[in-house]
Amino acid sequence: MTTTPTTPIPLASRASDLVGSVIDSSTSLLARQTHDIVRFAMGSPAPEAIPTHTLAQVGIAAMGAEAPDAFDYAATEGDPALVEALLAELAGTTDATTAERLFITSGGMQGLDLAFKLLVDPGDLVVVESPTYTNGSATALSYQAELLEAPVDADGLDVEQLERLVERAGRTPKALYVIPTFQNPSGATLTLERRQRLLELARRWGSVVIDDDPYGMLRFAGEPVPSLHELAGGDPLVFSVRTFSKIIAPGLRVGWVDADPSLQPLLINAKQAMDTCTNLPLQRLVAGFLREGHLQDHLVTQRASYRVRKEAMQAALTEHLGDQARWTDPEGGFFLWVSFDESVDTERLFEVALAEGVAYIPGNALSPGRRFPHDLRLCFASMPPERIHEGVRRLARAVERVRR
Amino acid sequence: MTTTPTTPIPLASRASDLVGSVIDSSTSLLARQTHDIVRFAMGSPAPEAIPTHTLAQVGIAAMGAEAPDAFDYAATEGDPALVEALLAELAGTTDATTAERLFITSGGMQGLDLAFKLLVDPGDLVVVESPTYTNGSATALSYQAELLEAPVDADGLDVEQLERLVERAGRTPKALYVIPTFQNPSGATLTLERRQRLLELARRWGSVVIDDDPYGMLRFAGEPVPSLHELAGGDPLVFSVRTFSKIIAPGLRVGWVDADPSLQPLLINAKQAMDTCTNLPLQRLVAGFLREGHLQDHLVTQRASYRVRKEAMQAALTEHLGDQARWTDPEGGFFLWVSFDESVDTERLFEVALAEGVAYIPGNALSPGRRFPHDLRLCFASMPPERIHEGVRRLARAVERVRR
Repeated sequence: MTTTPTTPIPLASRASDLVGSVIDSSTSLLARQTHDIVRFAMGSPAPEAIPTHTLAQVGIAAMGAEAPDAFDYAATEGDPALVEALLAELAGTTDATTAERLFITSGGMQGLDLAFKLLVDPGDLVVVESPTYTNGSATALSYQAELLEAPVDADGLDVEQLERLVERAGRTPKALYVIPTFQNPSGATLTLERRQRLLELARRWGSVVIDDDPYGMLRFAGEPVPSLHELAGGDPLVFSVRTFSKIIAPGLRVGWVDADPSLQPLLINAKQAMDTCTNLPLQRLVAGFLREGHLQDHLVTQRASYRVRKEAMQAALTEHLGDQARWTDPEGGFFLWVSFDESVDTERLFEVALAEGVAYIPGNALSPGRRFPHDLRLCFASMPPERIHEGVRRLARAVERVRR
Repeated sequence: MTTTPTTPIPLASRASDLVGSVIDSSTSLLARQTHDIVRFAMGSPAPEAIPTHTLAQVGIAAMGAEAPDAFDYAATEGDPALVEALLAELAGTTDATTAERLFITSGGMQGLDLAFKLLVDPGDLVVVESPTYTNGSATALSYQAELLEAPVDADGLDVEQLERLVERAGRTPKALYVIPTFQNPSGATLTLERRQRLLELARRWGSVVIDDDPYGMLRFAGEPVPSLHELAGGDPLVFSVRTFSKIIAPGLRVGWVDADPSLQPLLINAKQAMDTCTNLPLQRLVAGFLREGHLQDHLVTQRASYRVRKEAMQAALTEHLGDQARWTDPEGGFFLWVSFDESVDTERLFEVALAEGVAYIPGNALSPGRRFPHDLRLCFASMPPERIHEGVRRLARAVERVRR
């Protein structure tokens, strides 16, 4: 994946630690295909789930005659209009916060870039879930962290195994990178008990918990669990990363960080050396979208739609692959994790599946140590039920072909 | 400037190398002032120089019904529509380039973040101009570069002194960070001879030239000089950073990098771990703005306006501070550099000037080694001539007060 060019350019040693994203690259790969493909690969909201019309309407107001400064520099920590609207939106939720903890970012990924930039010296240990969102772990690698993979089961990160793994490593981790709710890629949600245990371990080790939760507002089944942010009750060791990418639209590149107020001056310094500020017109657009109450309406629609899609995917899996695979049962979010037996190599399967007209992310691309050769991630959020059914049928056909 | 908080958070060693921007902080400082202030501090286009109306018009089309995917993820390397429009815009100019060299960034600052992330290991030597744009040098510091300041005169970076300084340092620099045209903050333009000599030195040392040129299209006097990009003729050692911030609007956060094609895979990997992609709606907006031919018209207006403003500022300086200071004579861009004798401390002057109702950036804030205690930067671009005159009058009054 890493391509260090033969060049006279005197690259930094970290250049060889920059790991490309199979997830992002699959967008380009798929864009080059000319035949019909059911796209279970990317974790994007469905095109029809992005409220383009409302966004355009709100955007016109945000950039129009009454907003003459809409195209100027924004404050590094975020536009006051967005900060105010977001605080109001979060009040009373498990992510409720205060202005001095809030910091607007250019999407969730910049929240991770900020966290690891502030925390990681080369060689520092960072715990990641296994499987994990490898775009996130790549950010830790870009600061030359050493990764420790800890397993995830149906209840999320296995904190007992985590404790044993850290003991065996003989040193404490600088950070614990977790996606506690509707985890990417497993779909699992960390239980309340495990969340509390995780916070205890973090306190004991002096490790920062990077609480990456892009999907928490997209629960369509089961009972809500308090966020790590809420459970931590202001503990400076919890650094929460949030984004509007999955709940409004990814192209906005607007997200936020919720962190100890003592970090604000450092976040400002770090972001000024990254991109100065987040683009102002779309901060204003998001502020208007929130202020006009569109988000809550939109979430109600989305949750209902994603439940139908998840159920369609599970029904199709039962019908076409019921005797050959197991899969998870997420209560929200975008992803199902499908596990085959050892006879199915999901990287080899990928090309056959693409030829059959279906795309997914192979398990090995979602583990820095490539620990999931027989698993794959399916995004159920992007496709309507009939396409989901067709896609799973194609996947089953591909599995049949590679088994032969 | 650096505030490392007292906290149980296990910060990385680089946290203490993150240097805040006096330039950016002055925005927040000025926002808190309630009295009338003439703002010569920030390097923003004038509010009336940002084509808000046209941008809003083009933006509506870019995000409207005919663009259903406008809010989705963009390709990491940039939206094809913007790449195409930009290639056409640059064709025939000194920045003409090809698709495989072009990489869209979230503003010029991200171009610098990418450059230094790919190049700098802790302790590596990076040459910066003295004075320089300290937001840029802060990006090098965020990767723990060691900075070497080389002086700038009326002909730009003094390459002979640079050569001697590098010899004396006893090791070659990893990168040479230069703003060759209408330099920020001095306003000086590097001569053709010095550009050629700089490229020779870079080749001899194996150093990358980071060619940061945000103002090059804003020439209002004198003869154009070929860009370092053009003079390098494809030499992989030149890495060019450009932005729409000064020529269209800073709030867009859209810029580009022009670099050796061998770096594209690394730029993609690095950016995926920074912010995934640049926001798509405003990439589309810029593409539309270029495609409809607005940029050239806009530049013609801007150049004429900035010439008038620069002349107004020089006239006001002659009238009010003619016997007390010297200043530069830029042929384009945004900035004049004013030098006083040793009796004027421009950091101490700042508070008095603010009380008098005028703001600027003190020279020391524009040099990592704080080498300019008696100098200051004035931005002539943001204010109409009558305000410029009033601001310089206030500045002279403040100087009179500190001299007493």
